[in-house]
Amino acid sequence: MAELKNVEVSVLPWAPPVVHGLVRDLRVRWALEEAGCPYREHVLSPEQQASSEYRALQPFGQVPALKSGGVSLFESGAIVLHIAQHYPLALMSQEPGGHDHVMAWVFGVLNTVEPPVWTLTFIDVVYHGTKGEELLAFRARMIKLIESHLDTLTKVLDGKDYVLDRFTAVDILLTMVLRALRDTRLLEKRPTLAAYQHRCEARPAFQKALADQLTTFAEHAPGERT
Amino acid sequence: MAELKNVEVSVLPWAPPVVHGLVRDLRVRWALEEAGCPYREHVLSPEQQASSEYRALQPFGQVPALKSGGVSLFESGAIVLHIAQHYPLALMSQEPGGHDHVMAWVFGVLNTVEPPVWTLTFIDVVYHGTKGEELLAFRARMIKLIESHLDTLTKVLDGKDYVLDRFTAVDILLTMVLRALRDTRLLEKRPTLAAYQHRCEARPAFQKALADQLTTFAEHAPGERT
Repeated sequence: MAELKNVEVSVLPWAPPVVHGLVRDLRVRWALEEAGCPYREHVLSPEQQASSEYRALQPFGQVPALKSGGVSLFESGAIVLHIAQHYPLALMSQEPGGHDHVMAWVFGVLNTVEPPVWTLTFIDVVYHGTKGEELLAFRARMIKLIESHLDTLTKVLDGKDYVLDRFTAVDILLTMVLRALRDTRLLEKRPTLAAYQHRCEARPAFQKALADQLTTFAEHAPGERT
Repeated sequence: MAELKNVEVSVLPWAPPVVHGLVRDLRVRWALEEAGCPYREHVLSPEQQASSEYRALQPFGQVPALKSGGVSLFESGAIVLHIAQHYPLALMSQEPGGHDHVMAWVFGVLNTVEPPVWTLTFIDVVYHGTKGEELLAFRARMIKLIESHLDTLTKVLDGKDYVLDRFTAVDILLTMVLRALRDTRLLEKRPTLAAYQHRCEARPAFQKALADQLTTFAEHAPGERT
């Protein structure tokens, strides 16, 4: 497939620090940096984000959406996979059946690993310090499920640098999901996974993408409150 | 792409009634029925499901996994998309850019719409009748998020039979996610969505797939408890 031309990615102007380095445009920025594909940011004002014009591009009104020539796409998972298909040497497995393995793992990360992580993060952000017994019991169930997934991932990554034969789109998505656990101690207890996350985050493409997200947030930060 | 040959789908022998018609092999069974692609069930005993042989096919030990010739795949989202790519006349949009639209919507359903539905279902199954105030407040937050997604979907489906230009893989996945809300009243309040779900579930391919899942469960039901 041809290289992507004239790429534009929608991003938030600002987000609270608790989600800095997590907002999902970072998944797409990282993939584009790995691919060596330049892009423009489309920094959405709240009015633009709520507009029917943006809803035509992104029905749920979220970031990111991608435009490239006549193509438009939404959902970070779909966009990262699209970039991988256009830049297979950067983001696809090179093994026989590699495309299928990437597909299966992308959905494994986003539809099996991420839901309880998303739920835990939601509880910990919105109900920080809760003493509600049943909410804490439910939170403990989420942790148990996350731990079983992390144990599976530890086995998969044992003796390997990446989930598949080389760095792929899967590692971008999985690293981003693991990052959401940064306020827990679930990864420190699993050195294989902690080392994997560190290895992926040390990549220059990730560092560049992260710096760019944080720069945009800094430029649009609300004034200090007194 | 060529038709799939010699397809085998892993399924559970039995599951509790609360998840009958929801277990995820149904997503794959339905897609195969729409495609007119015959398949064999691989009914997993609990021992087989826990085996390292099955984990090599499905790292998280879940159903379904698919084998077809030399290809193996896991995650229902990846499998349904794979089937759609092999049977585009049955399961893909026929519009220009249709493949990208299917991709974006598949991730929209599985990574935006489904997570709060999954969370709500988990609460309602495990904490049925809870009076824990904070858990109920958290549940209400999930409902609010689900309702905003349902309102988006109502707009998308206004005046249309399916999410895209015709029945596609997206409708299989979305219908299955909406089914998980069957013990709530969220759909009755939205006649466009209720009619959409009814329209999709009336398809002979869905009816056949559902009957086959339920038949397998009935054949392996545990004896009546006294």
